[in-house]
Amino acid sequence: MTAPDGRLSINQATIKYAPLGEALAATANAGIAGIGLWRDSVQAASLTGAARLLTDSGLRFSSLCRGGFFTVPEGRARRAAMDDNRKAIEETATLAAAGAPGSAAVLVMVAGGIPQGSRDLAGARSMVQDALAELAPEAQAAGVTLALEPLHPMYASDRAVISTLKQALDLASPFSPAAVGVVIDTFHVWWDPELPAGIARAGTEGRIASYQVCDWATPLAADVLLSRHYPGDGVIDFRSITAAVEAAGYTGDIEVEIFNQEIWDTAPATALARTVEGFEANVAVHLRRMGADLGR
Amino acid sequence: MTAPDGRLSINQATIKYAPLGEALAATANAGIAGIGLWRDSVQAASLTGAARLLTDSGLRFSSLCRGGFFTVPEGRARRAAMDDNRKAIEETATLAAAGAPGSAAVLVMVAGGIPQGSRDLAGARSMVQDALAELAPEAQAAGVTLALEPLHPMYASDRAVISTLKQALDLASPFSPAAVGVVIDTFHVWWDPELPAGIARAGTEGRIASYQVCDWATPLAADVLLSRHYPGDGVIDFRSITAAVEAAGYTGDIEVEIFNQEIWDTAPATALARTVEGFEANVAVHLRRMGADLGR
Repeated sequence: MTAPDGRLSINQATIKYAPLGEALAATANAGIAGIGLWRDSVQAASLTGAARLLTDSGLRFSSLCRGGFFTVPEGRARRAAMDDNRKAIEETATLAAAGAPGSAAVLVMVAGGIPQGSRDLAGARSMVQDALAELAPEAQAAGVTLALEPLHPMYASDRAVISTLKQALDLASPFSPAAVGVVIDTFHVWWDPELPAGIARAGTEGRIASYQVCDWATPLAADVLLSRHYPGDGVIDFRSITAAVEAAGYTGDIEVEIFNQEIWDTAPATALARTVEGFEANVAVHLRRMGADLGR
Repeated sequence: MTAPDGRLSINQATIKYAPLGEALAATANAGIAGIGLWRDSVQAASLTGAARLLTDSGLRFSSLCRGGFFTVPEGRARRAAMDDNRKAIEETATLAAAGAPGSAAVLVMVAGGIPQGSRDLAGARSMVQDALAELAPEAQAAGVTLALEPLHPMYASDRAVISTLKQALDLASPFSPAAVGVVIDTFHVWWDPELPAGIARAGTEGRIASYQVCDWATPLAADVLLSRHYPGDGVIDFRSITAAVEAAGYTGDIEVEIFNQEIWDTAPATALARTVEGFEANVAVHLRRMGADLGR
């Protein structure tokens, strides 16, 4: 079996059905040094319990998925969403402190879709801006970066009204890069003709909080959320995107995050071995400074 | 039954299963004044036969779908694609001359996806640029506008490497607006945060060759090509987009083009009545100069 590059981190969603303890053990056993966690799994173990399991695993923590879902009009539901984001900020800080050196206090933010019954896309986008203004100071005080993830435009109506890297950077621009950054996920942004410019700008502004890789292939799955593939199994040019992300100065973990029923139906160890294989052949080979730049 | 606005044109794909003669008759019977045709249907009737049927119907001709599919490396297959586009230019000119006054010699262009086995998206995009350089002078000489259609980014890999209006305008920029324009199709571009700027630019540059409307709703159909809906049945804000297209100076036909198995399975007269209803309630009401600005 290939020894994985030191910058590879597995996003827990790739082995979705493994409970936290099992996911951590399988990741460490696969020789992978980092992991990105999901809130439902952390909460199932309790935050204290999850932090202890993480510390014991010896793994770096690369991100928590996810906060956001801000596109709710002012009122009780919005207040509940904001409070839930505050809780997620706290979870992120705790887990980053519990992870091995080089852990990143990054909270991935999915914006939310257009409110039910509304057609006001611009209005939904401004709700995201308002929510950031409220949360950014609190995140910064907690040492946590809110990482805005542009999602593929096919999710614009029901999941994330942030559709391009440029738009995420524009939304982030009023805030310190320590408080608000961006996620670059190849699946969501590979098609964008403005991607090279966006990555360069994200680097200049110091906002690349996470780099996630998985591949795009058609036909899309019937549930388009589950259309993600191992690097190399689709059409994405990881060479040019990875080179751009490195040229922009990003030296952190690189997460593989795959939602795919077929992959979920394989044993975690198998999915991890295939992840390592795909990552090494398609991403790690394009890294200039393999494994030499961790310990942020 | 509602009397349709004078600017409504039905794209033949909305009543895909009706042969040409039947499609023209059903459109005229529904009180719709224009139609956009598809090449397979025109060729099935022969170009001369189709032109005669069109003239006899008294309908305006608003566009021919479609040319393009340019993302083929140089060689025999590319030469065949270019020759087929030449034929499509000729068909467009013939049909525009055969349609009622106000017909538009517009050939809708779908760029094509990434070539099989390739991951070179930028290279595929430059193949489109090269093809336009070859065909634009011939289109202009024939009085035909090649209308570049940005398709939704979910089709970038297998159908159209032109994914945004800005990108279509950039590709069009070396050419006269009489030779190369753009299609604004709400389904493909509604999500784009840069859409207002793109529409304004398209107007300033005189490049809006076609405005097509249909709605976006989720969940997407299992075949994502068939996810289009009647205006009003989804989340698109036709008010703001239509206002922007009008402010940009577009005064031509507005096509309703829907690919949807359920709609195809209804009788053409039913689909046309529903089209008129959706168009009137969601698009026509936002036109400033209803029906008063035809006769280009």
